[in-house]
Amino acid sequence: MKTLGTRIIACLFAFFLAIFFTTVIEAAGPSTELGACSLPSWNDGAAKTSISEFVATVTKEGPDFVPPAERIAVFDNDGTLWAEQPMYFQFFFMLDRIKTLARQHPEWKTQEPFASILKGDVKSALAGGEKALGQLMMTTHAGMTSEEFEKIVKDWIATARHPKTGRLFTEMVYQPMLELLSCLRANGFKTFIVSGGGIEFMRPWSERVYGIPPEQIIGSSIKTKYDLRDGKPVLIRLPEINFVDDGPGKPVGIQMNIGRHPVAAFGNSDGDLQMLQWTSAGTGPRFGLIVHHTDAEREWAYDRNSPIGRLDKALDEAQRRGWIIVDMKKDWKTIFPEIRTTTSKTVPTRGAVGNVPAQAVNAN
Amino acid sequence: MKTLGTRIIACLFAFFLAIFFTTVIEAAGPSTELGACSLPSWNDGAAKTSISEFVATVTKEGPDFVPPAERIAVFDNDGTLWAEQPMYFQFFFMLDRIKTLARQHPEWKTQEPFASILKGDVKSALAGGEKALGQLMMTTHAGMTSEEFEKIVKDWIATARHPKTGRLFTEMVYQPMLELLSCLRANGFKTFIVSGGGIEFMRPWSERVYGIPPEQIIGSSIKTKYDLRDGKPVLIRLPEINFVDDGPGKPVGIQMNIGRHPVAAFGNSDGDLQMLQWTSAGTGPRFGLIVHHTDAEREWAYDRNSPIGRLDKALDEAQRRGWIIVDMKKDWKTIFPEIRTTTSKTVPTRGAVGNVPAQAVNAN
Repeated sequence: MKTLGTRIIACLFAFFLAIFFTTVIEAAGPSTELGACSLPSWNDGAAKTSISEFVATVTKEGPDFVPPAERIAVFDNDGTLWAEQPMYFQFFFMLDRIKTLARQHPEWKTQEPFASILKGDVKSALAGGEKALGQLMMTTHAGMTSEEFEKIVKDWIATARHPKTGRLFTEMVYQPMLELLSCLRANGFKTFIVSGGGIEFMRPWSERVYGIPPEQIIGSSIKTKYDLRDGKPVLIRLPEINFVDDGPGKPVGIQMNIGRHPVAAFGNSDGDLQMLQWTSAGTGPRFGLIVHHTDAEREWAYDRNSPIGRLDKALDEAQRRGWIIVDMKKDWKTIFPEIRTTTSKTVPTRGAVGNVPAQAVNAN
Repeated sequence: MKTLGTRIIACLFAFFLAIFFTTVIEAAGPSTELGACSLPSWNDGAAKTSISEFVATVTKEGPDFVPPAERIAVFDNDGTLWAEQPMYFQFFFMLDRIKTLARQHPEWKTQEPFASILKGDVKSALAGGEKALGQLMMTTHAGMTSEEFEKIVKDWIATARHPKTGRLFTEMVYQPMLELLSCLRANGFKTFIVSGGGIEFMRPWSERVYGIPPEQIIGSSIKTKYDLRDGKPVLIRLPEINFVDDGPGKPVGIQMNIGRHPVAAFGNSDGDLQMLQWTSAGTGPRFGLIVHHTDAEREWAYDRNSPIGRLDKALDEAQRRGWIIVDMKKDWKTIFPEIRTTTSKTVPTRGAVGNVPAQAVNAN
């Protein structure tokens, strides 16, 4: 029989083990409080409740349990995770880039579509239709190496600001959606972006801002070519479309990059319709959600007739398929994250998620 | 002051916590013994030592520390993770598939390249060159939905056996490489396959056999098209090449799917040369390894003159660049995993890794 001393030593050892492993878990990954989502920037209501219920359902042992490996959640970016008005933010990048490159291209002063862009007349520049847009895109997105392009985007996004709000573009992400991303990751989900935007335009900042690593970004792309420059391997970005990750392209991109059916999809426009259909089509519990821009005061209000982020067919289909429609005005307590001011300039908060445990941000 | 009873209850509670959290860790992820790699199927020598040293270096705080998010390791499949002789295993799949489909195609009896295949004369079938091979590939790999193709592959791989060894093809994976995969994952690495083989040919079994989930498989692909069939979303596989993930295509595939430089690359042929160059080109510690097939008795011996898995330029460059060359005959204690026999038929072991902790297999 053991002595009291031995018992106490065993007890201390067990207690130490408990502390040790608790610490390891906190550092390593998903919260152990499965099913718990505080979502502080969401008002109480059907949307918030449905999220919590879905998360609880798939993480609880039972007929609707989904193993962690299959907890794939896909998010559109423009209009779903960050704003997209008065035009896609990548378009602002393109315009700024034209202005920067114009220094080396004096001929652009008289050459369309560049001349109009330099005069600030976007409408005339785009009168040339798809050809003009393609020319502007390829001039600004191709011809350099992948590493050079990454640096160009990083430098731009560090300082570029939205013309209406004066915020950095990365501060125009939606606080409620950041909380949702964190909630899903804390519950073992792997979160992916599936966007019509350029894959290499998103990657340089998506990990810092959304906690989503580059390998979980799916987007549109141009072709690249492997080459050796002075013996150094590079990937050259070519002026040729590789893949358009929009509309019916989204399920294709999901299959190509993920290879299994997501169980949850989040979008805001008709460009997300097929992604939502594809996600809903799998067997077992599925979750679809559409962000409806209804808040003209705090953000923008638009849907069926907007040239950017048109939401028409998907709005009708949402009702038939039981997808959750988020009414931004009603369902969201805050829209954009609070900006913490340090020294002389504003900085985005880490993952912009002030009140979500840090370990949840980068977990999956 | 607490009573003895209270102490004992507290002790039991602490002990319960310890047990509970230990269990959670085993189910959830990476081993806490960072830097430890037992690699029991590797003989002592430079190759084994270099692996352990690299893992220790990048996981230890210091100038060469690599944050977990950047611990990306890429593996070729054919000839690196499983055998590839006398021909790529996907080719066996194609031949079997032609024979199965021939029942619905009586005209194939006289129509090349099918007629020769059905007579068992592969050489004559391929006399038609690239066109004939393309025809065989597309007939067997396109025209169905992605879900139908997944089932076809799953059914085939469950029973198909190698003509020389009589093993299931999934039992012809290399035990030392399975241990290496587990070792890397236990040390926070994310392991990817980057193969010239078909992406949808690998995914149906790669998670079970290698512990690598579908979203971490990069491979060659054909185009797919999203469609609704009786209202049900499907992806139709089209008879058109989308991407060839071989040679200079491998760095392109890595950038497209991962979006950051791997820190370690593992290959066995000239088709892996550019992947190894690309990986080595990054800043910070990098690891390159080439499996050299030198064991004619236990496996196959081939390199510079082999039509399958030719290793020539990469063998020369390995010496210049300091990539590790594994001499299979000398460095590997065992080649294939032990097959556990249960009931009347052999079954591959879970992840085929008999002596590696289960939690290491699926971690990353």
